[in-house]
Amino acid sequence: MKIKGIGGEFALIKRITKFVKDKDLIKGIGDDAAVIKIGNKYLVITTDTLVEGDHFSFKWFTPKQVGKKAIEINASDIGAMGAVPKYVLVSLVLPVDIDVEVIDEIYKGMWEAGKKYNTKIIGGNMTHGKQLVIDIDMIGEAKKENLKFRSSARPGDFILVSGDLGASTAGLNLFLNNTKDHDYVKKKHLEPKAKFYKVKKFLKYINAMIDVSDGLASDITRICEQSNVGAIIFKGNIPIKEETRNAARAVGKDAVDYALYGGEDFELIYTVSKDNLGKVGGFLVGEITKKKGVRLYSNSKERLITKHGYDHFLIK
Amino acid sequence: MKIKGIGGEFALIKRITKFVKDKDLIKGIGDDAAVIKIGNKYLVITTDTLVEGDHFSFKWFTPKQVGKKAIEINASDIGAMGAVPKYVLVSLVLPVDIDVEVIDEIYKGMWEAGKKYNTKIIGGNMTHGKQLVIDIDMIGEAKKENLKFRSSARPGDFILVSGDLGASTAGLNLFLNNTKDHDYVKKKHLEPKAKFYKVKKFLKYINAMIDVSDGLASDITRICEQSNVGAIIFKGNIPIKEETRNAARAVGKDAVDYALYGGEDFELIYTVSKDNLGKVGGFLVGEITKKKGVRLYSNSKERLITKHGYDHFLIK
Repeated sequence: MKIKGIGGEFALIKRITKFVKDKDLIKGIGDDAAVIKIGNKYLVITTDTLVEGDHFSFKWFTPKQVGKKAIEINASDIGAMGAVPKYVLVSLVLPVDIDVEVIDEIYKGMWEAGKKYNTKIIGGNMTHGKQLVIDIDMIGEAKKENLKFRSSARPGDFILVSGDLGASTAGLNLFLNNTKDHDYVKKKHLEPKAKFYKVKKFLKYINAMIDVSDGLASDITRICEQSNVGAIIFKGNIPIKEETRNAARAVGKDAVDYALYGGEDFELIYTVSKDNLGKVGGFLVGEITKKKGVRLYSNSKERLITKHGYDHFLIK
Repeated sequence: MKIKGIGGEFALIKRITKFVKDKDLIKGIGDDAAVIKIGNKYLVITTDTLVEGDHFSFKWFTPKQVGKKAIEINASDIGAMGAVPKYVLVSLVLPVDIDVEVIDEIYKGMWEAGKKYNTKIIGGNMTHGKQLVIDIDMIGEAKKENLKFRSSARPGDFILVSGDLGASTAGLNLFLNNTKDHDYVKKKHLEPKAKFYKVKKFLKYINAMIDVSDGLASDITRICEQSNVGAIIFKGNIPIKEETRNAARAVGKDAVDYALYGGEDFELIYTVSKDNLGKVGGFLVGEITKKKGVRLYSNSKERLITKHGYDHFLIK
């Protein structure tokens, strides 16, 4: 059995995941990060990997931007748990012919992005391989009452997103097509930022939360699967900037597809009960339902949407 | 500037390392693992990477052995800090054509090795790339009084190792040369084991400690650099099994070189004051000196030995 194809990653994770019982393990595999209780503190731990040619290309990324991205995407996972980043370990797989200046710049980017969050690099590892791989482990801390899981969405909750979607994928597609201009979406692709500061003030009203790493369709599916619920997304309410629509049009694509299946926006998706809707910010894009499956509502019609967001195994 | 060549890794680490000030950071970059204080608990965190073709080859490793190795080498780092492993995060970079059965077996190996230490896989990440990369993050816990650092060796301390050296490298060289038999050293290469159980009973008498991942010369140099001391190693006292000497001879090599520069034995090197020598086990191989540099004593002569142990950047 090969892992190629839609859903390969999902099937694989299910196959190798074991149920772990541990009194101090608050959340294991299946969320943006694991949560362990250490004394009376809650530690949130995540790991994410950037592979050259898959997650970034030096054709359009500077090494410093790559370093920043490595930190931001992990900070995004930590933030999606309701935690704040604290410490970082960096594992590098380096091709033997890489310039040290490139590594210097990657580290500069990591320190610069880390500084924003008062996050420090405290360890790591270096070895060599055929292509550059940057693996980040990030450790954050959360107050118990702030911890947010994918599994806490309830039927009747509204679904909100913290900002506009699809821009990063639009940017990537412009780069892949050598298309000029459209600086807004290109910058969104080159300089992603964790967005947890946007929800900080109203965290207590949020039921379930996840960050948009693989697209709205894929990431809301993760909430639904973990919460044992379904969702309906109102197509017309998905926040997409005019710049993103224009950029998509320039390469003959639909910006809604980028928002649903593109990923790497690192906005947050969160669910809120009707009573609390007035107390939170963000864009209302749908509703959690008892009925399973994720459906897209448009022109008075509903259709099931699949979870095949930005499937890393599909990208060549 | 390219990172090829002897000492490239050392120079690079110095270049990108920043001094980190943080009240809860007990030990940052420069030891087997980082140590942070969470409430009144001491958390020890390490990361280590296995790259196919560099750290293992499926020509002689089974996928299960690879999984076990990934856990054991990280457990060795945690143990070298005086801590016990608790939790694991697994980041995989998978070639698109890998069989799922291979990944199943790698995970089986990881669970099996983890079980020995009551260590659980609580999270991870998966993506694809040109070659298989297994990056493990391991989190352990230590009592404050058990924490051991590379930086605590004192002039006059004796240097001990917990077991015989050179066997793993001997095994690797037999595989590379397609040499038959010599099962002892081959098994040592294929099934490395963390050895911290060997020093558990007398931890309190140990001053500085490190695990042998890159060879006695390289790893004692790390202790010396961190402790601002030197060392003398008595060549005749390095514990090397007859099986290892025979295996080295079979490919025209000297087993002492394997012990000094080979690595991956995962025995522990530790220093103990003269007063405490009678209270610890292990093989006495040398002495910590005020005089800087690491010297090898043999036939009434001393010579400086360099730290270029198993330099991953030198291995093709």
